[in-house]
Amino acid sequence: MQSLDIQVESKSLQHSIIFGGAGFIGTNLVRKLLFHGHRVTVVDNLSKGRVKLLSEFTDSINFCFIEADISDRNQCRAAFLRIIEFGVGEVWHLAANSDIPAGVSDPTVDLKDTFMTTFEILLCMKEFGFKHINFASSSAVYGDWLDVPLHESLGPLRPISNYGAMKLASEAQISSASESFLEGANIFRFPNVVGTPATHGVIYDFVGRLRAQPEKLEVLGNGAQQKSYLHVSDLLSAMLVIRNRNNGPKVEIVNIGAADSGVTVSWIAEQVVARVSPSANIFYGADSKGWVGDVPKFSYSTEKLQGYGWFPKLSSTQAIRVAVDEIADQVEL
Amino acid sequence: MQSLDIQVESKSLQHSIIFGGAGFIGTNLVRKLLFHGHRVTVVDNLSKGRVKLLSEFTDSINFCFIEADISDRNQCRAAFLRIIEFGVGEVWHLAANSDIPAGVSDPTVDLKDTFMTTFEILLCMKEFGFKHINFASSSAVYGDWLDVPLHESLGPLRPISNYGAMKLASEAQISSASESFLEGANIFRFPNVVGTPATHGVIYDFVGRLRAQPEKLEVLGNGAQQKSYLHVSDLLSAMLVIRNRNNGPKVEIVNIGAADSGVTVSWIAEQVVARVSPSANIFYGADSKGWVGDVPKFSYSTEKLQGYGWFPKLSSTQAIRVAVDEIADQVEL
Repeated sequence: MQSLDIQVESKSLQHSIIFGGAGFIGTNLVRKLLFHGHRVTVVDNLSKGRVKLLSEFTDSINFCFIEADISDRNQCRAAFLRIIEFGVGEVWHLAANSDIPAGVSDPTVDLKDTFMTTFEILLCMKEFGFKHINFASSSAVYGDWLDVPLHESLGPLRPISNYGAMKLASEAQISSASESFLEGANIFRFPNVVGTPATHGVIYDFVGRLRAQPEKLEVLGNGAQQKSYLHVSDLLSAMLVIRNRNNGPKVEIVNIGAADSGVTVSWIAEQVVARVSPSANIFYGADSKGWVGDVPKFSYSTEKLQGYGWFPKLSSTQAIRVAVDEIADQVEL
Repeated sequence: MQSLDIQVESKSLQHSIIFGGAGFIGTNLVRKLLFHGHRVTVVDNLSKGRVKLLSEFTDSINFCFIEADISDRNQCRAAFLRIIEFGVGEVWHLAANSDIPAGVSDPTVDLKDTFMTTFEILLCMKEFGFKHINFASSSAVYGDWLDVPLHESLGPLRPISNYGAMKLASEAQISSASESFLEGANIFRFPNVVGTPATHGVIYDFVGRLRAQPEKLEVLGNGAQQKSYLHVSDLLSAMLVIRNRNNGPKVEIVNIGAADSGVTVSWIAEQVVARVSPSANIFYGADSKGWVGDVPKFSYSTEKLQGYGWFPKLSSTQAIRVAVDEIADQVEL
């Protein structure tokens, strides 16, 4: 493996293209990269992303938005033809189906939105001479390992959702592209991320249900599912630490997560109820899983990330508390 | 994980459907399963497979051939509608692009022939109630680990060819399908397999070149690439041992290979020259890799397979010697 300095001092690398940039994590990344002086182009199909989430950026001369479904070859190529008007740049690929249960019942959803987006982006990157990619993968690639800590060196990977499968397929295709034309790839295996502007996720779901029915909260599953959560501010700082690395393999694969064992769904439900509708009763289902493809409990190893000197500012408990406040205050999307 | 008895004593499981059954390994599998009393349906698009390789089976009342490109949704579904006339059965999925360098220069080749075949087969298996799959994966999923023995527990996987990437994507999709509807899946990570009827591969290539130009043999790469090779007879016996297992996880992933460190390309070239055209001179290239995506050397761990009590009858050296003889004698395809 070659070592790699991804922080090339070339002007062209200061153009950052964010696929899926109109969503929850994407808009936070746009803000951060604009703040750091990058020119930022967002490409999004607006299936989950929202144009109004980008409204704070549209006055910036360094910002551009392109609406396109990049899982479609023609639309992806048309988007790249516009992107290169602002120069070759560094790709951040966050576009994916974010509704995991929807992808479980219909595999074509994740094929198109989670995998074919990656495939078509890579085809265009090769054609137009883009050499660097940062990819939002997921802890879902591991599958269900019960109490075994999920370390990047673990195998074999047996994802249990089509979302996880198509994230792993994307990792594989990026890895292969790195052998033929990419100069550097960072693959981030995201944890559960919380914060605003929330568009989906457990807190958003609970807040929405309580707003509709303030007297009760029905929880999928028995509430015992335990996971760690990371606040989006910590996620971004971790991604940038890896992105700015000047060593390691050409394709770096890193778990990003909190360094704790996480919190249960029932504890989250209690926090949301306390904040939004304190008199509500909470009702639980019988299953240990919320839905097919849900991993009821996992222990996420972040040893490799810590090797980069990075530690989260907020624990899972703190991240949830902050996010419950933020999402409760969030203007309806 | 649930334990699994794949050797269900149901008549329906004795119908074996072999996708990619008109190729090198497929035709050997057809012969073996017919011998064991199965009804066998072969589905092949005849891109690499050949109808005449199936001619020895066409007299059998237990054999049926369907020509279809199963990467196409309509053709795959039409094939399944014919397959179920003979009853639900067990799937053997060997269909893939077998020309790895072709897939390196054009990623859409492996997307279609190596991954979409898997995706569409799984969609139809779900629709038509097929619960068991045996899948031909590949050592190419690992990527280049230099001297680290390739064990199934190794991670992260960083394939360096689109072929390896799309085999890993297929593994991932099968794993996910096992969470929703499959009852059992065996994923075989194939090594380099030799024998007849050869349709591609290093020996076939060398024999063909020497027949065309008997005085010289030009070898891609410097000839130092060292790999282990398994004879197709050993491959089949290993697959059936795993297929007949009555324990282990729902999705079992096993390396199949010889238990030795293999032989070099230059040694193979010498064997072919000695057998086919003893006076020929051998010329080597300068690269340590034969082509982009080639893994120059790897050590394949077969410890897990040996845990099933299986050992190869032929070493890499013996397998190559036998296969050189067989392929030199093979009637032109």
